[in-house]
Amino acid sequence: MATKFVHVLSKKPRNVDDLGSDMHRLMARLFPICRSLTGPGVRETLGILKEHLPGLTLHEVPSGTKCFDWTVPDEWSLREAYVIGPDGSKVVDFQKHNLHVVSYSEPVDVELPLSELQEHLHSLPDQPDAIPYVTSYYKRRWGFCLAHRKREQLKEGTYRAVIDSTLEPGNLNYGELVIDGDTDDEIFLSTYICHPSLANNELSGPVVTAFLAKWIAALPRRRYTYRIVFIPETIGSITYLSQNLDHLKAHVRAGFNVTCVGDERCHSYLPSRAGDTIADRVALHVLRHVASDFKRYSFLDRGSDERQYCAPGVDLPVATVMRSKYGTYPEYHTSLDDLDLVTPEGLHGGFEVLRRCLEGLELDATYRASKLCEPQMGRRGLYGTLGTKASDVTTQTYMDILAYCDGVHSLLDIAEMLGRPLWELKPAIGELLRHRLIERSGAETGKDTDGR
Amino acid sequence: MATKFVHVLSKKPRNVDDLGSDMHRLMARLFPICRSLTGPGVRETLGILKEHLPGLTLHEVPSGTKCFDWTVPDEWSLREAYVIGPDGSKVVDFQKHNLHVVSYSEPVDVELPLSELQEHLHSLPDQPDAIPYVTSYYKRRWGFCLAHRKREQLKEGTYRAVIDSTLEPGNLNYGELVIDGDTDDEIFLSTYICHPSLANNELSGPVVTAFLAKWIAALPRRRYTYRIVFIPETIGSITYLSQNLDHLKAHVRAGFNVTCVGDERCHSYLPSRAGDTIADRVALHVLRHVASDFKRYSFLDRGSDERQYCAPGVDLPVATVMRSKYGTYPEYHTSLDDLDLVTPEGLHGGFEVLRRCLEGLELDATYRASKLCEPQMGRRGLYGTLGTKASDVTTQTYMDILAYCDGVHSLLDIAEMLGRPLWELKPAIGELLRHRLIERSGAETGKDTDGR
Amino acid sequence: MATKFVHVLSKKPRNVDDLGSDMHRLMARLFPICRSLTGPGVRETLGILKEHLPGLTLHEVPSGTKCFDWTVPDEWSLREAYVIGPDGSKVVDFQKHNLHVVSYSEPVDVELPLSELQEHLHSLPDQPDAIPYVTSYYKRRWGFCLAHRKREQLKEGTYRAVIDSTLEPGNLNYGELVIDGDTDDEIFLSTYICHPSLANNELSGPVVTAFLAKWIAALPRRRYTYRIVFIPETIGSITYLSQNLDHLKAHVRAGFNVTCVGDERCHSYLPSRAGDTIADRVALHVLRHVASDFKRYSFLDRGSDERQYCAPGVDLPVATVMRSKYGTYPEYHTSLDDLDLVTPEGLHGGFEVLRRCLEGLELDATYRASKLCEPQMGRRGLYGTLGTKASDVTTQTYMDILAYCDGVHSLLDIAEMLGRPLWELKPAIGELLRHRLIERSGAETGKDTDGR
Repeated sequence: MATKFVHVLSKKPRNVDDLGSDMHRLMARLFPICRSLTGPGVRETLGILKEHLPGLTLHEVPSGTKCFDWTVPDEWSLREAYVIGPDGSKVVDFQKHNLHVVSYSEPVDVELPLSELQEHLHSLPDQPDAIPYVTSYYKRRWGFCLAHRKREQLKEGTYRAVIDSTLEPGNLNYGELVIDGDTDDEIFLSTYICHPSLANNELSGPVVTAFLAKWIAALPRRRYTYRIVFIPETIGSITYLSQNLDHLKAHVRAGFNVTCVGDERCHSYLPSRAGDTIADRVALHVLRHVASDFKRYSFLDRGSDERQYCAPGVDLPVATVMRSKYGTYPEYHTSLDDLDLVTPEGLHGGFEVLRRCLEGLELDATYRASKLCEPQMGRRGLYGTLGTKASDVTTQTYMDILAYCDGVHSLLDIAEMLGRPLWELKPAIGELLRHRLIERSGAETGKDTDGR
Repeated sequence: MATKFVHVLSKKPRNVDDLGSDMHRLMARLFPICRSLTGPGVRETLGILKEHLPGLTLHEVPSGTKCFDWTVPDEWSLREAYVIGPDGSKVVDFQKHNLHVVSYSEPVDVELPLSELQEHLHSLPDQPDAIPYVTSYYKRRWGFCLAHRKREQLKEGTYRAVIDSTLEPGNLNYGELVIDGDTDDEIFLSTYICHPSLANNELSGPVVTAFLAKWIAALPRRRYTYRIVFIPETIGSITYLSQNLDHLKAHVRAGFNVTCVGDERCHSYLPSRAGDTIADRVALHVLRHVASDFKRYSFLDRGSDERQYCAPGVDLPVATVMRSKYGTYPEYHTSLDDLDLVTPEGLHGGFEVLRRCLEGLELDATYRASKLCEPQMGRRGLYGTLGTKASDVTTQTYMDILAYCDGVHSLLDIAEMLGRPLWELKPAIGELLRHRLIERSGAETGKDTDGR
Repeated sequence: MATKFVHVLSKKPRNVDDLGSDMHRLMARLFPICRSLTGPGVRETLGILKEHLPGLTLHEVPSGTKCFDWTVPDEWSLREAYVIGPDGSKVVDFQKHNLHVVSYSEPVDVELPLSELQEHLHSLPDQPDAIPYVTSYYKRRWGFCLAHRKREQLKEGTYRAVIDSTLEPGNLNYGELVIDGDTDDEIFLSTYICHPSLANNELSGPVVTAFLAKWIAALPRRRYTYRIVFIPETIGSITYLSQNLDHLKAHVRAGFNVTCVGDERCHSYLPSRAGDTIADRVALHVLRHVASDFKRYSFLDRGSDERQYCAPGVDLPVATVMRSKYGTYPEYHTSLDDLDLVTPEGLHGGFEVLRRCLEGLELDATYRASKLCEPQMGRRGLYGTLGTKASDVTTQTYMDILAYCDGVHSLLDIAEMLGRPLWELKPAIGELLRHRLIERSGAETGKDTDGR
């Protein structure tokens, strides 16, 4: 019983190049799809993810559904969008880049002088070659985004702006994957699928999450049940919470919002609102050991779905581990956040930190020493029998672990005290269990609902 | 209901020059009065304060009354006191400065040689032009104080020392003002009126307190009831406590000992004995924002009535915010602590810090977000509807406040987390209440006795 | 009642030279005895200690007795042990140094070539003149230890190795001394007597402990009962715990493992596993005041009987104060840890820190001020009656103590707040008790089992 999860994480992840490249390839396939909060782009994305995760359940929530303070919006479909200049050529064309049209633009087909068109154009004077990403989900508008350098070249004259979109009742779509574990205590992963053609601040999230799910599913056994959702940001998490809050509050022991995990710059951490949940503690532990120069943000720097998961009254233990955080890097929310910015190495690094976090959660448990006083390690072959001046490092590890197997300190606590990564203690824990020198304690990190 | 106190503090204080000058003018009027623990000087002082604060109740406690370990002393009246030198001229004369006579001197009329007179003289060799302030409340003595430079000029010969005083049963006097609020939770202010002709370490206290009382009384409404006492130091606070301890322990939520609030040097803070009461927290919050270079003392540096208010078993939440603390500035307890040392600007600065503390206590409350997850700010006009790269500072303030309206963190906690002064959050709180996005929580800073 | 222990510690220790020399003399007498876990050397050592401590009770526990995970080993007796070289001379001889033979060596009398002999030899290439200390308690082996320089001079040829030892059922011996106090709350001291001819890491412990016991016994009265054991390390403490655990858990309020208290280098501290017991707090307090440059170790650096006393489920409040810690100084576990390394001054310093710790535990108590507000010190002669600018240091001490006699802060807490050693507050506490200004509070440091 007590040993069941010791072998869980023995499988090595595939080597970096393969794994990173596989993730990047999936990202490249998803990149051209025109996603928004709702609409065919979301469904197409979920369909591709389901190829990788056959257990993915696809949900739909009708427009108009009340979700706490919100209402599921109408579904947006966009067929084409362009601006024709005075000389008859297309000066802006959605076919060339998804970002050219303001997301959720209402349909329009109008001729107007440049001066009036300007009110519907968006560009970035400081990044003259970047197309900005602009949305207008909750107010009916239409607009186009373009590189500032191009905008400056527009000549006076009459333009024709065409957006062939529909905004009408439909559905909000999301995907949910549950991977059963030995207990119904849950680890919750959430990532979003609502940004068109943006790589770090969007596709790195669902891609890394999909590959984490594959890794989880391949484990011989799991202590935790994993609940993984692919949702549109904000309205999606609010919708999901409005339909699942009681279950989540009862079962989720730790969770991560998976976003911005693909570039090669820093690693970073944004805490849960409470700041000291087991998700926070394991994230900090992993980052200290694998990327000690990681950037640490405050919950005040939040900006993604942790806003909902950690809201007062929701209070899920959801932390965020990222690479370059949304809003902090120059390519953010522009056409420069692309397939070059996110690399196989970057994705692999983001994957590894999260994998170590999940591994840590699986390993973390509270033990109790079976014997009073130190056990005699020698007759169990766990100690050199000839006492000399040199100390046996391995023996010290056994003894240090035993010294804190007191039913109070968890393995994560012990690893922190020893200044060593949790995963390095796995072999010693295995041996100590095998020799019945420790046993699992009732005081679990999270509560086991099946009484173990 | 929940919004009642939001508008409470909207009244601006009068402008600095007027307010500071008004306070300095009152101080100048009180300065020449010969105050001591008891006697006519105290009554005259209370009479003038009552002109400003008509609600002031004057109390008298007869000599001989037992107050915990103490007894109210006889009342001391001084008519004149002088020393005539060998040449017949007055070398020391109480008419020229109140400090020339040791406070509570017994009557005397004696001729004696200089050598014997010296035993009754007090001066400061290191401050040769200053007259020291000396008292002998609890042992019968007589004595004179004078500038050391003058003392050195005294010639051998026979002197006549005359003190026309009486020390006989009378009363200890103090004033008490209660300004009702919406609850019977109380804020307690205490200041002292027992030093003759000393400006920073005495009169700045009752003067600033009187003007705070006027400001409080002018508020449209108050959450707290304010109890304000003008008492002689030590024996006065002990007497007051001995007669009001149960009430104070039951009702006082925060308090301040108002002393040394008139010079222009530093601001300073001396904690309550507990150190973490709401009075301490709001004082530190205000000082960090309005005088970040303030000096921070330890309770071990105490020396005024916080010694009684924070004594074991009394344990009132009373902190002290000052300008230059008693005992730390060179003019302290000498004739140099005068109307030049204390200025209109100095008084105004002392007033402002305390006013901000009271404002903070009125504003501080615990709220609960009314909606699960973030509310949709856009349809309430509290959010830009076009999502772009630039963030709306005001929206961020709303969202940050909402994120911590969890029924646990008070507004003071939130202001501390945001690194902003509490009073800057007032407009946002007002809007959030107006839109019913938050509501007052039962978990108050102090307990409301009327069940709200 | 409340005053009883105030006079307890008034006896001055004997002067440094006498005390240090007396301790060093006892150490020199114990040094030549061949101690091991068991055997005649332990009994001889206990016999000599009993000359100093007539109340010492000698215990024996038969070989084969189960003690938690351990079994009391056979008793080891060694009569002689030597190696004869090819030229017929003794190249190693136990008569010359106890360390020459591996402790617990089985009997042997064998001729063998040098190459085979080498497998049974132990030396230290980095310390070529030191004989190492080697044991093989729990695996049957035989071996010799010698200076590396000598080992390198051994010539090829046939050697005869003789160890005339017996390893057969007998007893494990230890000594226990109980000195009664006013309560049955106990202070526990443990030290070990199982190393042959090693001074700092062995004999300094029992010698200082013996003299502490004499000092304790000479006190006019004691609040605590003292339980002091002289045991072999590890198996001895495990054996003792296995027979006394319930009693110790019920009564021990603080304890110290006394080891490595004899050299003149640093003082050092190793915490209990919990880290914040009263033993830890008093040890840190004493060291900060008498040896502020002391070295502070972590419980992870443990290596002596605190491993057992602080094991999970045992959890005694046992801390360790040392001079140079075992394992950290070059002479450790070699023949260089001798009577020159440990000096009278070194022993005296080790003694003094522990004596101060015990004194601190006796003094530490929680008091409650008898009067509400500050008492009037003047009429009790505890205050200058003429208030002037200069403050009376003694009065300040009284007032500072009184300010924290709140039934919550103990005298140790107060001493820490005042930044003064606990023992300096003794006279003030005595006066305050005499004047009935404070009284002992029920909230004791440790719980008194007789209801006081």
